[in-house]
Amino acid sequence: MPELDQQQPLAGAPAARVLVAGASGFTGALAAQIVWRHPQLELVAITSRSDAGTRLDRLYPRYRVPLELTELDLGRVEGIDAAIVAYPHGASAPAVAALRERDVIVADLSADFRLRDRETYERWYGEHGAPELFGAAVYGLAEMYREELRGAKLAAIPGCYPTASVLALAPLAEKGLIADVVIDAKQGVSGAGRGGGDAMHYVTMDENAFAYKTEGHRHRPEIEQELAALGSNVPVTFVPHLLPLDQGELASCYAQLIEPISKEEVQALYAERYAGERFVRVVDRPPGLRDVRDTNDCHVYVTVEERGRVLAFSAIDNIWKGASSQAVQCLNLMLGLDEGMGLE
Amino acid sequence: MPELDQQQPLAGAPAARVLVAGASGFTGALAAQIVWRHPQLELVAITSRSDAGTRLDRLYPRYRVPLELTELDLGRVEGIDAAIVAYPHGASAPAVAALRERDVIVADLSADFRLRDRETYERWYGEHGAPELFGAAVYGLAEMYREELRGAKLAAIPGCYPTASVLALAPLAEKGLIADVVIDAKQGVSGAGRGGGDAMHYVTMDENAFAYKTEGHRHRPEIEQELAALGSNVPVTFVPHLLPLDQGELASCYAQLIEPISKEEVQALYAERYAGERFVRVVDRPPGLRDVRDTNDCHVYVTVEERGRVLAFSAIDNIWKGASSQAVQCLNLMLGLDEGMGLE
Amino acid sequence: MPELDQQQPLAGAPAARVLVAGASGFTGALAAQIVWRHPQLELVAITSRSDAGTRLDRLYPRYRVPLELTELDLGRVEGIDAAIVAYPHGASAPAVAALRERDVIVADLSADFRLRDRETYERWYGEHGAPELFGAAVYGLAEMYREELRGAKLAAIPGCYPTASVLALAPLAEKGLIADVVIDAKQGVSGAGRGGGDAMHYVTMDENAFAYKTEGHRHRPEIEQELAALGSNVPVTFVPHLLPLDQGELASCYAQLIEPISKEEVQALYAERYAGERFVRVVDRPPGLRDVRDTNDCHVYVTVEERGRVLAFSAIDNIWKGASSQAVQCLNLMLGLDEGMGLE
Amino acid sequence: MPELDQQQPLAGAPAARVLVAGASGFTGALAAQIVWRHPQLELVAITSRSDAGTRLDRLYPRYRVPLELTELDLGRVEGIDAAIVAYPHGASAPAVAALRERDVIVADLSADFRLRDRETYERWYGEHGAPELFGAAVYGLAEMYREELRGAKLAAIPGCYPTASVLALAPLAEKGLIADVVIDAKQGVSGAGRGGGDAMHYVTMDENAFAYKTEGHRHRPEIEQELAALGSNVPVTFVPHLLPLDQGELASCYAQLIEPISKEEVQALYAERYAGERFVRVVDRPPGLRDVRDTNDCHVYVTVEERGRVLAFSAIDNIWKGASSQAVQCLNLMLGLDEGMGLE
Repeated sequence: MPELDQQQPLAGAPAARVLVAGASGFTGALAAQIVWRHPQLELVAITSRSDAGTRLDRLYPRYRVPLELTELDLGRVEGIDAAIVAYPHGASAPAVAALRERDVIVADLSADFRLRDRETYERWYGEHGAPELFGAAVYGLAEMYREELRGAKLAAIPGCYPTASVLALAPLAEKGLIADVVIDAKQGVSGAGRGGGDAMHYVTMDENAFAYKTEGHRHRPEIEQELAALGSNVPVTFVPHLLPLDQGELASCYAQLIEPISKEEVQALYAERYAGERFVRVVDRPPGLRDVRDTNDCHVYVTVEERGRVLAFSAIDNIWKGASSQAVQCLNLMLGLDEGMGLE
Repeated sequence: MPELDQQQPLAGAPAARVLVAGASGFTGALAAQIVWRHPQLELVAITSRSDAGTRLDRLYPRYRVPLELTELDLGRVEGIDAAIVAYPHGASAPAVAALRERDVIVADLSADFRLRDRETYERWYGEHGAPELFGAAVYGLAEMYREELRGAKLAAIPGCYPTASVLALAPLAEKGLIADVVIDAKQGVSGAGRGGGDAMHYVTMDENAFAYKTEGHRHRPEIEQELAALGSNVPVTFVPHLLPLDQGELASCYAQLIEPISKEEVQALYAERYAGERFVRVVDRPPGLRDVRDTNDCHVYVTVEERGRVLAFSAIDNIWKGASSQAVQCLNLMLGLDEGMGLE
Repeated sequence: MPELDQQQPLAGAPAARVLVAGASGFTGALAAQIVWRHPQLELVAITSRSDAGTRLDRLYPRYRVPLELTELDLGRVEGIDAAIVAYPHGASAPAVAALRERDVIVADLSADFRLRDRETYERWYGEHGAPELFGAAVYGLAEMYREELRGAKLAAIPGCYPTASVLALAPLAEKGLIADVVIDAKQGVSGAGRGGGDAMHYVTMDENAFAYKTEGHRHRPEIEQELAALGSNVPVTFVPHLLPLDQGELASCYAQLIEPISKEEVQALYAERYAGERFVRVVDRPPGLRDVRDTNDCHVYVTVEERGRVLAFSAIDNIWKGASSQAVQCLNLMLGLDEGMGLE
Repeated sequence: MPELDQQQPLAGAPAARVLVAGASGFTGALAAQIVWRHPQLELVAITSRSDAGTRLDRLYPRYRVPLELTELDLGRVEGIDAAIVAYPHGASAPAVAALRERDVIVADLSADFRLRDRETYERWYGEHGAPELFGAAVYGLAEMYREELRGAKLAAIPGCYPTASVLALAPLAEKGLIADVVIDAKQGVSGAGRGGGDAMHYVTMDENAFAYKTEGHRHRPEIEQELAALGSNVPVTFVPHLLPLDQGELASCYAQLIEPISKEEVQALYAERYAGERFVRVVDRPPGLRDVRDTNDCHVYVTVEERGRVLAFSAIDNIWKGASSQAVQCLNLMLGLDEGMGLE
């Protein structure tokens, strides 16, 4: 077999032996690929209920992971230091709890540990599958919770919508400047995940675009929670749209401020806030999705339009920074590694 | 030659002999195609400076118009009853004036006659090329100005952004209900027109999406003008985006109202307002661009989201209802024909 | 409701009352749409097992057919003169037989009646579901079997691959000139039909292209049958590919001839052969799929390359001329109507 | 500025200081990006006539090269060990000659040094710009000329069509088995390069596909030259097509053999031939373009179809393995580095 199939040789002992659970979905498969190429992580198992027995590089030839998917057997989780869990909301919590019992460090891609208010969780997702762990996770957005993530045992990785929205608005929210915000979010089809039937058929999405979940999307309370945590406890209008492309998430944010701000001031504020962030780049024109595809980068542009609103645009790759590479970014911090290792 | 190349035989004498000026651009070529197939209009000339000498069905094989493009010679405009002018902003006004002097009925696709405030025009477009005609046109949105269009001699056809935005908001604006509105508009690449160089190269736009003209777009004052004319004199935040598809325009409108309204009330308001409109359909879920491609239709969905904002979404084909077929819709009214003739 | 929802008023009594069976698939839905707009056909019923109870314009908003899909009840087929059957291969034959027993004229989109050799049919499709009718159909390619189709009761409409391939090669085949042919066929995703799961997910097909069924495709014997019927009994190498677009079928044909021919001669041969065909246009450069989208047209280009092979390229819309509009073209002939009625 | 902008620190002194000339085109820009990230190459200059003064990461934000494009001044080529030249055919030869005079090692992406027969070159490309160097280059396909490339000073990197075609057919050609071959090649729009005007506008290519240069393409003699060099001096029919996607090249090859071969035999032959090649993978189903996007990989599938022809399919990324990453693969060999360095 070609050498491509060889995992990158590690320099010395790996920092962690890693399991990816739910590796047959889009984000799980990508997480496996990133761990596979990571210089200090060893990918020791990838699991899937639906595709057990299949090699991942057969399911996704574009990812070069020559491991076979197996069914997760929690009774046999040995020699695993860390896990990325890519399960659906609801299904994730019990699996995460079982892994945590075995002292496995977990980066969870589901929504199960993102919310801090139990009632809100139950309204949107139903009963929680591991109530004893509710609220125990650090929110997996390194740009906001870097210190809390260092050494943490459980991180709740935000999805693409909160990631893009919060990064677009954080510098304003931290100053308590936001009075009201509309977020018009646009995402590629990979965000809808595998399955989807007719709705995600090529013929349905080709040359198409539309809004969905217009009456209320469960990421709205999560975005409000994080803006409030930063300093701006404000109502958010959030509407997601689907675009005819594979990977990408563009958040167009329209904010009324408590007091006016000039274009120069707000651009300086953003430049300063993100000066030290290696994965957030403040750019000088509205970012395009192609600029960030297949990267952990977030490009942000902020300006003030004629009518006085602040406009903030952020572009990420929805399955990278909006999911899988962000999970590895967090895992790096949790394991004491360099935050960007394996991501550049 | 195949019969496809034969113009539809007219039933009796044509209602009008039509010229399309600027027929080598996307909207001009489509206008030529629609006139060509129209049962009561006769396409007698198509003109273009850049492509004179070329047959239109060679330039655009998907349009079946076997006429040769010629240079417009205003001194020889004889036997022409009506014209659709698809010139760039600024270049249009003098040509329209010359045609009007020869008593040709004109549907103008440029912005030159849309605005009613001269100062606003000059701010965004520069000096006007036919000041004596400024303000003389009827705004070419049949759903708002139907009676004025009947028998009119000059119509200023709105572009896709104002068309989609005004149709999305008109029922609220007419009641004077709107306090403030954000319009996040998304458009296919055909909206950028021919040319464009690198920016519109397939490789640039493929898998891409981004906002543009975020500091101020010249369609914003036009939308404000029309909302005010309907009854809601309010500031508009308007941001256009480009999507990786050919034809389509989606306006996502976020309106704060002067007083709250329920989802049922607002949906009833829209249903009633558009009940008699054959080209506007109030739909029961957010419309997709594929639903309206290659048609003169506008699909509108309205709802109220959790935070109390009214959301209105409209989808049109940007070069049909947002330009060329809307011009024919207006021409039909101006000529006393059935409004939908040749459009269904 | 908008007038768009009204069926085109017929001029006088309809020529036929038409049923479309299997109208929830891509080709059945399009057939329903074409019949709906046809000036002399009345669409009286559309049926579907999987989507019974749904209105077709909800399932496919881009088609404007406001009828509800029902389950086909062959015991209640009354007042139906003609049917377009869009069932899967195998399932079609018994339904067609039942309709024929009730004297309904049938245009069948499946492969069940296309082949003339029973053994070949069984090899590729299994047991035939209506052996008494095997061989009873006229092959539904009007350009080859026009006279046989007039007044016929059962037509076997060829799919997009044989349609494009045979039209590309017919002028040569009729002269008995072909010695050997390679057909490299490329098709949009609509050709794979609804369903398809992961394989037809937007994410799978986006930015992708590949060959499939490389060891043998069941359309190969059908193409060989038709070339032989025209005069060239030769082996065909046929390989289909899938492209990242919705509608379109491009057949690139590489023919060795029995004797050399010049580019001028072969182009003259094609021009002459297709001079009277309104839906086949011999063009002077290789045709593009966009040129024929949403039409019943076939564009053909023929040339001779440096090494002496004749190259013939044909482009059609795979679900129009490659299926649904071709069925209506045949139905027109079967019913004694103008061949192109409702198709231009 | 983010650390992303920092070039990868080199481990010790760089193996070579590299210039990329013509770095504002698609392949030059990608070459710059690959060199930028290469662990043993130092990117010291990137040049462009048309875009001098612009930073490359502004022209192509997706590439993270923060260097400014400058005009190439051959009088000031100092401290440069190696160059990748991405000039148009014809323009390349004199620049390459000047670089070679200064003892710069060159990987040339143009066709200027690929052909070995001067007359053939002149027929397709006109007069040669550096006749003294004609024939002096090693053909830059490492899988065929690995030993010759080690230590070579000038490599003529084949384009995507010959690369994909020769890799698809080499195992057969080396055995002298091929009697005749048809190559139907399909390429994404990036292959057409920047510029292109209307022809490469998003609107032109969207939902489109077509053949071009059907009467003779200049890559045909190059493919014939290389098949002959391998052992099969046979005429090639070669037809390129353009597909609606960005990056990718699929060669579908239809070969008549001198003697029959079974599917098992031919698959064993390919498996054996490519067993040691790290960038060629023999796969067990027809390869898709997505499988190889953004990689230096070539996926090959071979089989025998019912009529006895051997079918060989190869997929590469046209601007990676078909141009820029292949240039770096060759440069690695020329410089004595590991062949795959910086490419995995």
